[in-house]
Amino acid sequence: MTTRDDCLGRDAQDPLAALRARFDLPAGLIYLDGNSLGARPRAALARAQDVIAREWGQDLIRSWNTAGWFDLPKRLGNRLAPLLGAGQDEVVVTDTTSVNLFKALAAALQMQAEQPATASRRVLVTERSNFPTDIYMAQGLAGWLARGYTVRLVDSVEEIAAAIDADTAVVMLTHVNYRSGYQHDMRATSALAHAAGALVVWDLAHSAGAVPLALNGDGADLAVGCTYKYLNGGPGAPAFIWVPARHQARFRQPLSGWWGHAAPFAMAPDFAPADGIGRALCGTQPIVSLAMVESGLEVFEQTDMAAVRAKSLALTDLFIELVERRCGSHPLGLVTPRQHARRGSHVSFTHPHGYAVMQALIGRGVVGDYREPAIMRFGFTPLYTSYTEVWDAVEILRQILDDTAYDIAAKRDAVT
Amino acid sequence: MTTRDDCLGRDAQDPLAALRARFDLPAGLIYLDGNSLGARPRAALARAQDVIAREWGQDLIRSWNTAGWFDLPKRLGNRLAPLLGAGQDEVVVTDTTSVNLFKALAAALQMQAEQPATASRRVLVTERSNFPTDIYMAQGLAGWLARGYTVRLVDSVEEIAAAIDADTAVVMLTHVNYRSGYQHDMRATSALAHAAGALVVWDLAHSAGAVPLALNGDGADLAVGCTYKYLNGGPGAPAFIWVPARHQARFRQPLSGWWGHAAPFAMAPDFAPADGIGRALCGTQPIVSLAMVESGLEVFEQTDMAAVRAKSLALTDLFIELVERRCGSHPLGLVTPRQHARRGSHVSFTHPHGYAVMQALIGRGVVGDYREPAIMRFGFTPLYTSYTEVWDAVEILRQILDDTAYDIAAKRDAVT
Repeated sequence: MTTRDDCLGRDAQDPLAALRARFDLPAGLIYLDGNSLGARPRAALARAQDVIAREWGQDLIRSWNTAGWFDLPKRLGNRLAPLLGAGQDEVVVTDTTSVNLFKALAAALQMQAEQPATASRRVLVTERSNFPTDIYMAQGLAGWLARGYTVRLVDSVEEIAAAIDADTAVVMLTHVNYRSGYQHDMRATSALAHAAGALVVWDLAHSAGAVPLALNGDGADLAVGCTYKYLNGGPGAPAFIWVPARHQARFRQPLSGWWGHAAPFAMAPDFAPADGIGRALCGTQPIVSLAMVESGLEVFEQTDMAAVRAKSLALTDLFIELVERRCGSHPLGLVTPRQHARRGSHVSFTHPHGYAVMQALIGRGVVGDYREPAIMRFGFTPLYTSYTEVWDAVEILRQILDDTAYDIAAKRDAVT
Repeated sequence: MTTRDDCLGRDAQDPLAALRARFDLPAGLIYLDGNSLGARPRAALARAQDVIAREWGQDLIRSWNTAGWFDLPKRLGNRLAPLLGAGQDEVVVTDTTSVNLFKALAAALQMQAEQPATASRRVLVTERSNFPTDIYMAQGLAGWLARGYTVRLVDSVEEIAAAIDADTAVVMLTHVNYRSGYQHDMRATSALAHAAGALVVWDLAHSAGAVPLALNGDGADLAVGCTYKYLNGGPGAPAFIWVPARHQARFRQPLSGWWGHAAPFAMAPDFAPADGIGRALCGTQPIVSLAMVESGLEVFEQTDMAAVRAKSLALTDLFIELVERRCGSHPLGLVTPRQHARRGSHVSFTHPHGYAVMQALIGRGVVGDYREPAIMRFGFTPLYTSYTEVWDAVEILRQILDDTAYDIAAKRDAVT
């Protein structure tokens, strides 16, 4: 039975413990929401100051060349690639996850339309429980292509295999579910889709920097993801898109802006896509927000995803164990899989008054978040979360539950 | 005949002169490239530091509510609106100009397709001399809609009227041309298009903050633009899109992400567009780059566009006068209209060795830029450019030309 002293001991032996000093976190706060907005790397402030004061303020327009602003999406993509199991020149950091998903889905549908064997396929399969914007973007694309595409929503993981059939052009899945923390088997699902003649587009919003990824090794076709959660890139930091070398020549997307042109400064009147990953770019990027992504990636270069994953599983195992043991008399329901292979890096519990309990937790300095219906969500970020914090968070949860120290009438009005 | 002393005198009486202190500009540099990347407002650094250190670092996830991050695109849009002649709740600052143009063009084509009288129209008219990304985005959209749209490129301003016919769904024009500085007559062209049953989408990249605009008064239908040029929002700062109240109910666009949903946090599985301007939004925005846009807008609130325009015309008149008088023996050709109503806020001259001359100017501390073919481009930003700087810039240009103090063999390799 784990005690607080055990947790202190584990922290003392934690090979990642030193990395916490690279983050600026408020004293006394137990931050379990890094799956929504990652904490701030200390280096990010100095980096932004340099970009603003020197690169912008002093060097002005010449920084597009001298500071490498124009190449930043590719440079950051190459630095991110090892965390994704992606190759060099296969990733760019740019635009938003939603916009990148639009590019990826459009390209995947077009790749299928150009193959005689799959040209007639008109169905895009995804999960009803997917993060809504992914579904919305697919609906938006399907509705505008005017070739009769439909988005098929599957109600459970078990039904995905049966839903992929000879009409399926593309399967779009979020690798780790934002609510449940369920992690798909990327290799098996990709193989399943390929066997049925479909392509798979993965959203890695809750995976990148959270779980080891092997995009090329697991046979993924295209992927997008976000940098402001586990990658700690800053609020709303630009997202990424992965196009493997094997698909790049056939990758075409409708957001054909000048950054994706083969010769952007030739000012030619016709669009010609860049060779390689550059064709996934569109317009001019927000340089200050983009540059800070690098400060987040630098921290990961002090460790590796195997070590991050080992600690992530230890933290989530500990949290589940402690909640079930110490809060066992309360109506809490574990949503997240116990099986390691199927778990991401956050843990969700239902409670009939989940929103109210979460508000009480936040009031006591334990920051998680709430998702309808009735789900309390706790993110565990091995770069800066300690075992002792997990113990203390559960102790505070126990006190709140035992004392009914929450406002049952609390109404949800927050936007996060 | 204007002398340097005259310029010093005009600076002493310039009602905008005090605003220069609100910008951080390198000592001794004459910056005439604010039409490409605006100078840094001093307040932008402190604003970014506060967003990074306090809002992100200390308040973390709760800043989506407490710091108003989620509402920032609308709040900035409302602050920008007066500069555009737009109404409140008609503008959002978001995404890139290219992405916003895609939304605007898609919506305009759809609006036409839904009207029986215009449903069969399949032509999008623009200028061959438009900024290439605008043409590329139109081509990208037309190619993917699969209803047989074509993009018609017009070779001169005089031919636009004749090119708008019963097949024209949408006219897309950049209000001030990025190369020539030619300013379209927004009211006359909008009326022309409307008389032919077409809608007009305006790109205000070189207009917003540069010339007075009356989007509603002049009958524009939709508009997009950029904040990192004359609005001084920072490198690659998020762009804007304007949807007038009269078109909002019919405005639908395919990038239907969760920020554009009627109830983004209800997590409903079907997209339903927000009422009003919110439906022009898509995904999560880069908050630090976005927040700095406000520091640029604050400066404009110390003056008005009539005063900015009066000084802009005085600066460009002075530059043209001095170049033609003092460099008259050299093969310089004025590209920019002399007529005030047809001029933006930059002046372009051709020279057979334009690239080499511009490099020499930059080497002497006069920063303009170069655009193919043979065009030297000089931007005049009344908030921080003085009359004496114009005099000194022309003096340095004169010396370079008189002494042939430039490298004729200089090859263009810069990306800007």
